[in-house]
Amino acid sequence: MRILILGGDGYLGWPTAMNLAVENEVWVVDNYLRRRIAEATDSEPLIATPSLTERARLFEAVSGNRIETIIGDLGDPDLMYDIVQRVQPECIIHYAEQPSAPYSMRGFKEARETLQNNLNVTFNCIWAVKDIVPDCHIIKLGTMGEYGTPNIDIEEGWLDIEHKGRKDKFLFPRAAGSLYHTTKVLDTDLIWFYVRTYGIRVTDLMQGPVYGLSTDEADLDQGLVPNFNYDDIFGTVVNRFLVQAVAGIPLTVYGGGGQTRGYLNLRDTLQCVRLSVENPADKGTLRIFNQFTETLSVNDIATKIKTVGDSMGLGVNIKSIENPRKEREEHYYNPTHTGLLDLGLEPNYMTDDVIASMLERIVVNKDNINTDRIMPRVRWNA
Amino acid sequence: MRILILGGDGYLGWPTAMNLAVENEVWVVDNYLRRRIAEATDSEPLIATPSLTERARLFEAVSGNRIETIIGDLGDPDLMYDIVQRVQPECIIHYAEQPSAPYSMRGFKEARETLQNNLNVTFNCIWAVKDIVPDCHIIKLGTMGEYGTPNIDIEEGWLDIEHKGRKDKFLFPRAAGSLYHTTKVLDTDLIWFYVRTYGIRVTDLMQGPVYGLSTDEADLDQGLVPNFNYDDIFGTVVNRFLVQAVAGIPLTVYGGGGQTRGYLNLRDTLQCVRLSVENPADKGTLRIFNQFTETLSVNDIATKIKTVGDSMGLGVNIKSIENPRKEREEHYYNPTHTGLLDLGLEPNYMTDDVIASMLERIVVNKDNINTDRIMPRVRWNA
Repeated sequence: MRILILGGDGYLGWPTAMNLAVENEVWVVDNYLRRRIAEATDSEPLIATPSLTERARLFEAVSGNRIETIIGDLGDPDLMYDIVQRVQPECIIHYAEQPSAPYSMRGFKEARETLQNNLNVTFNCIWAVKDIVPDCHIIKLGTMGEYGTPNIDIEEGWLDIEHKGRKDKFLFPRAAGSLYHTTKVLDTDLIWFYVRTYGIRVTDLMQGPVYGLSTDEADLDQGLVPNFNYDDIFGTVVNRFLVQAVAGIPLTVYGGGGQTRGYLNLRDTLQCVRLSVENPADKGTLRIFNQFTETLSVNDIATKIKTVGDSMGLGVNIKSIENPRKEREEHYYNPTHTGLLDLGLEPNYMTDDVIASMLERIVVNKDNINTDRIMPRVRWNA
Repeated sequence: MRILILGGDGYLGWPTAMNLAVENEVWVVDNYLRRRIAEATDSEPLIATPSLTERARLFEAVSGNRIETIIGDLGDPDLMYDIVQRVQPECIIHYAEQPSAPYSMRGFKEARETLQNNLNVTFNCIWAVKDIVPDCHIIKLGTMGEYGTPNIDIEEGWLDIEHKGRKDKFLFPRAAGSLYHTTKVLDTDLIWFYVRTYGIRVTDLMQGPVYGLSTDEADLDQGLVPNFNYDDIFGTVVNRFLVQAVAGIPLTVYGGGGQTRGYLNLRDTLQCVRLSVENPADKGTLRIFNQFTETLSVNDIATKIKTVGDSMGLGVNIKSIENPRKEREEHYYNPTHTGLLDLGLEPNYMTDDVIASMLERIVVNKDNINTDRIMPRVRWNA
């Protein structure tokens, strides 16, 4: 299958590209926005990553599988149309969004950059597909964060509502906790409008926070490692805690630590995306999956990592700090997530073994840890 | 009160500015986007309107009330910040959006222009208020079209949902029928995020289609008339039917004509906005009103206008044509609209007298009618 990956240089985009390149023709596009933001905010990954083209060359050398790379800004409609015309993709995987919640809350400039980049790429992608390859399956990375933390069970994207004796089905209500997450709500509204108006086919993967740095392909060579961030800008909480445990500084729980989310292993992101590629949404359908394997609170995660870290002699401490975000620290959270399991997802849970192997990998790179970038540098109520 | 009106040159913006200038200090800003689109698409109003500055001069001459005018693009954040800094508004009324559904469905360029203009102005407005005048009350013109035509009663902006024995309150689900209407859904999501995060105060007026060309102030001089459009791009259905009745061409009902919406007289838009100005939303609150006075189907409207037109000897015919839009032609429609009535709205309904006086005004300007611009030139499924 001809697959085009938008945002193919990212933490998830790059391992996805390698994974799918084993059996498909894969093109990746990236504008290096994340690299530029990482440089500007001192938020570079634990293990330096070569350029996208360099990584593709390396991957071909060690695996024999080719990945075509294009560096350019998909917010430019001419580039989007040109690439879709050239590649004639049967599937587009759209990761090309500014993915940091704290960055999107830093100030006007960063908020505007996030809004414009994310909306423009989604809009251009929809139009290029509609105009050039209307049967192409768009797989869009959404986020569980679109839903926020409602007091009712979170269904998979949609909700049947009965009101005053009448019934209808709607998008599940969304109320996100950062501007970044809100841009994904806007993406969903935009995509749903064009799906029902122009009959394109889309799968929206409402993903929870991802952790890990090992995949079958990434493990082939140190230079193929995903961008493993542990800073306050791009680092997800699990990856940040793992690095704190190795660095010998306390795991910094934001506020009460009861904040609960659906998490998944990087390997399961690859499974979920692959299952979506292999089982496309029907024409004229917006199919939505909640993409995570288990729900955990921040305190749960801290305790798990402390337990494993202590058993390895790391002497891990946990410390609550003032929450820089505006979010509920105790809340109901019960999201459905059966769609991807029904397609065949076999979860890799956050077991002690999984945590231990991540910690071991970080220990090897301990000298790279810059502890200045771990504490929150952005406040929601600044 | 110091009031800043964004989009003050429009069909609603200009009469609002005059109406509020009688008792307040009013500034209006406009980038003439609608004028440029009207020129480019041959969609100019029935009665030519002088420039915004010219109209303000004329209004001051006949009424003694001053309106400050600024021509510029509020999608430019520097201009938005500069104006808000200079004016220090206590209230901002935000009409500055590309308002045509057909224009937004014409092609990529027009869709992109609509998305970017509408989102950027809303975004810049929110930020300028947050940073410079955080107590300022933003009155945002939304649209009843955000809700679409659900099979349940439409509440005023919000919906209490009980699901699997648990309860929460959410934005009422939205599913709009054009890209223009969808940009207003995105506006709502964006505003709601920033209201709950930064504590700004916003009233969102979910307005139905407006008709009419008479207001106390507009009637002072022919040069003060609102931009009365009867074309397929900017003309709302009532205004278009009125002109067709006078021009002696059939009232063109799109499809079955069972499409039902909530309508209101231009005079009632002024009342609703004034009531919102005088009764601001609380800090940290997104207050939403459904702004219309009566629900009517397209067939209802055609019949009303035919009845009055025939009694005036116009000999009105009604003709169904293929629907250029993608919409339900028979559907349930029962929206709540008590909020503005509770504040004191006294409706001017679409009575025979009201229709007759509009027809008489159009008869006087009959020679200006260009019938080439009435039939639909944009199709949703092009």
